[in-house]
Amino acid sequence: MNIAGKEYNTIWVKENDNSIIQVIDQSFLPFEFRIKELSSVEDVYTTIKDMHIRGAPLIGVAAAFGIYLALVKYDQNTPLNEYLLSAAEKLKSSRPTAINIKHAVDSQLEVINMYNTADEKRNAAFKNALKISETEKENCRLIGEFGLPVIKNISHQKKGSPVNILTHCNAGWLACIDYGTATAPIYMAHDSGINVHVWVDETRPRNQGARLTAWELEQHGVPFTIITDNAGGHIMQHGLVDIVIVGSDRTTITGDVANKIGTYLKALAANDNNIPFYVALPSSSIDWNIEDGINEIPIELRDSDEIKYIQGLINGKIKNVMITGDNFPARNFGFDVTPAKFVNGLITERGICKANKSSIISLFPEKFKNSDK
Amino acid sequence: MNIAGKEYNTIWVKENDNSIIQVIDQSFLPFEFRIKELSSVEDVYTTIKDMHIRGAPLIGVAAAFGIYLALVKYDQNTPLNEYLLSAAEKLKSSRPTAINIKHAVDSQLEVINMYNTADEKRNAAFKNALKISETEKENCRLIGEFGLPVIKNISHQKKGSPVNILTHCNAGWLACIDYGTATAPIYMAHDSGINVHVWVDETRPRNQGARLTAWELEQHGVPFTIITDNAGGHIMQHGLVDIVIVGSDRTTITGDVANKIGTYLKALAANDNNIPFYVALPSSSIDWNIEDGINEIPIELRDSDEIKYIQGLINGKIKNVMITGDNFPARNFGFDVTPAKFVNGLITERGICKANKSSIISLFPEKFKNSDK
Repeated sequence: MNIAGKEYNTIWVKENDNSIIQVIDQSFLPFEFRIKELSSVEDVYTTIKDMHIRGAPLIGVAAAFGIYLALVKYDQNTPLNEYLLSAAEKLKSSRPTAINIKHAVDSQLEVINMYNTADEKRNAAFKNALKISETEKENCRLIGEFGLPVIKNISHQKKGSPVNILTHCNAGWLACIDYGTATAPIYMAHDSGINVHVWVDETRPRNQGARLTAWELEQHGVPFTIITDNAGGHIMQHGLVDIVIVGSDRTTITGDVANKIGTYLKALAANDNNIPFYVALPSSSIDWNIEDGINEIPIELRDSDEIKYIQGLINGKIKNVMITGDNFPARNFGFDVTPAKFVNGLITERGICKANKSSIISLFPEKFKNSDK
Repeated sequence: MNIAGKEYNTIWVKENDNSIIQVIDQSFLPFEFRIKELSSVEDVYTTIKDMHIRGAPLIGVAAAFGIYLALVKYDQNTPLNEYLLSAAEKLKSSRPTAINIKHAVDSQLEVINMYNTADEKRNAAFKNALKISETEKENCRLIGEFGLPVIKNISHQKKGSPVNILTHCNAGWLACIDYGTATAPIYMAHDSGINVHVWVDETRPRNQGARLTAWELEQHGVPFTIITDNAGGHIMQHGLVDIVIVGSDRTTITGDVANKIGTYLKALAANDNNIPFYVALPSSSIDWNIEDGINEIPIELRDSDEIKYIQGLINGKIKNVMITGDNFPARNFGFDVTPAKFVNGLITERGICKANKSSIISLFPEKFKNSDK
């Protein structure tokens, strides 16, 4: 991704200092562009938990680097195994819904386990974190390639008039390493000359749509319009949406999709208006162990102050204002689950499949080899 | 409605000065309680348009007083008829979706037409505005009485554990003269000792739920919790909602319901989770002339700054902050239409009916007498 003429990923190893990981700090965008440095598990944990970085693929990669940083800081005061497991648990607890953290951390522990000395383990963890990062990046590129024909087809049907795509939250390159998940086909379509326009759901309470997706699309030059989360149904009723594409924080092997709170409502509206509803996700977001999204995926309950206060710009300064009564109770559910029956397709790094078990198996047979599922 | 120990309606004639109408100014709640004075059509027009007052029944009554104030200010420079029609058009143009303004203004013109002198017309308009106001108030009370058994039944089924009611926007007493529409049965249930809890949709972009409904419920002592507009589907999936009750800005004779943007999404979720979805409305919100809500009800498009900026409290002062990029485009649809098939019942001042033409006719036969509809 290009930001003001410079090529960026969302996370990288600091130049000339392998003990520091740098990330784009998302918490001040679009008002300020800041880089944040991470040098410990604790840094990674709070950076994920407080949402300086967010997005399932990105926090997975960050957690992988978290395990590496734990090894960098290892002082031999505790047994290494115990120390690593504690770091792993801490990272996994930072955000409960996205499965990517678990996958990345488990991958690190498995790799580390193959080496003996702390030095070897650190080097292996470093290489594996870089590998996970590169794989995620390449997978997003592939999602773009596989999703592109879907948009191209609609463009053909509409004889070149704009393809209106609705997306929720930020499943853009900021949520990943590059390209994005939901946005990958959009950027690719735009770059190949297809006329696209994106309806960007604001995405309360943290407004990742109005702040991050809008900013990304603007940087890339893709036409977009911000709407409230409430508006999606209305514009679908009036023929203003051709396709919905969202990301996922965790998808079951049966195709139930956990994603940012409110996604389910858009899936219902798409279904009621015969609009295709696609979920773009790398396989790192698939939980190979569960079948029932609504009952088995843990839904994060976040601080109610995220609803009661909002960050904005006033006189050039970033401030928090209170937008409801001081003593009014609020409850902040972070995600919801869209049942597979409302999902028309999953766009993965291996192609598009239906949101059901047999179709997912056909793309990822190796995940089911030793299972009776 | 009782506010800090004092009985209020939302609109009234100033004590000892019939030329001034006073209203509760909703635009600073819950931060500040202010009274606003209206003394001309222009005052009423801007007060409605800029949403110092909102709510279909209330803006209908305010428009009725607007016609009266026009007569108070009449200076004989233009022919009275022309003057009144221009005042009527101005008021009707203040907000296009709610039908109540048209009904109230047309009622005023009809009454005025029965008298000859400007004095007689003014007196008649005054009395008729008061009558419309009293009727709206009484109708809301009746909506409460007819809606109460619905909540009572759920309470019985749940053996007294809290009845969880979800509502969207503010269809409370602030939107009416007193009692509210959606809230009337809730207040009545609470007052009769039924255990109720209200999920209050924030209601972006103007947050009438988080600001007005929450404030009202708090004043009345009804337990509530604010959620984002995105959360309704999730809590319905998890059995946390027993019934949805909303208001309406305009309902067709076939039962299609225009209400605050986002209502349709909640109706879809209620339908998908087998949760009853009720609309509480006085007959003044029914448009007796149309059958197709989606194609015939005009949907207000409001200033996109309502999405890009938000009002809140900072250091004890009410300020506006910018919550997205300065140059990011946004589109602000004010209402949506919930098709009748998703509405389980209309709670009116004459009882509950189904959301279809024959059922509406059975409650309001006189409206269909001279029609082939």
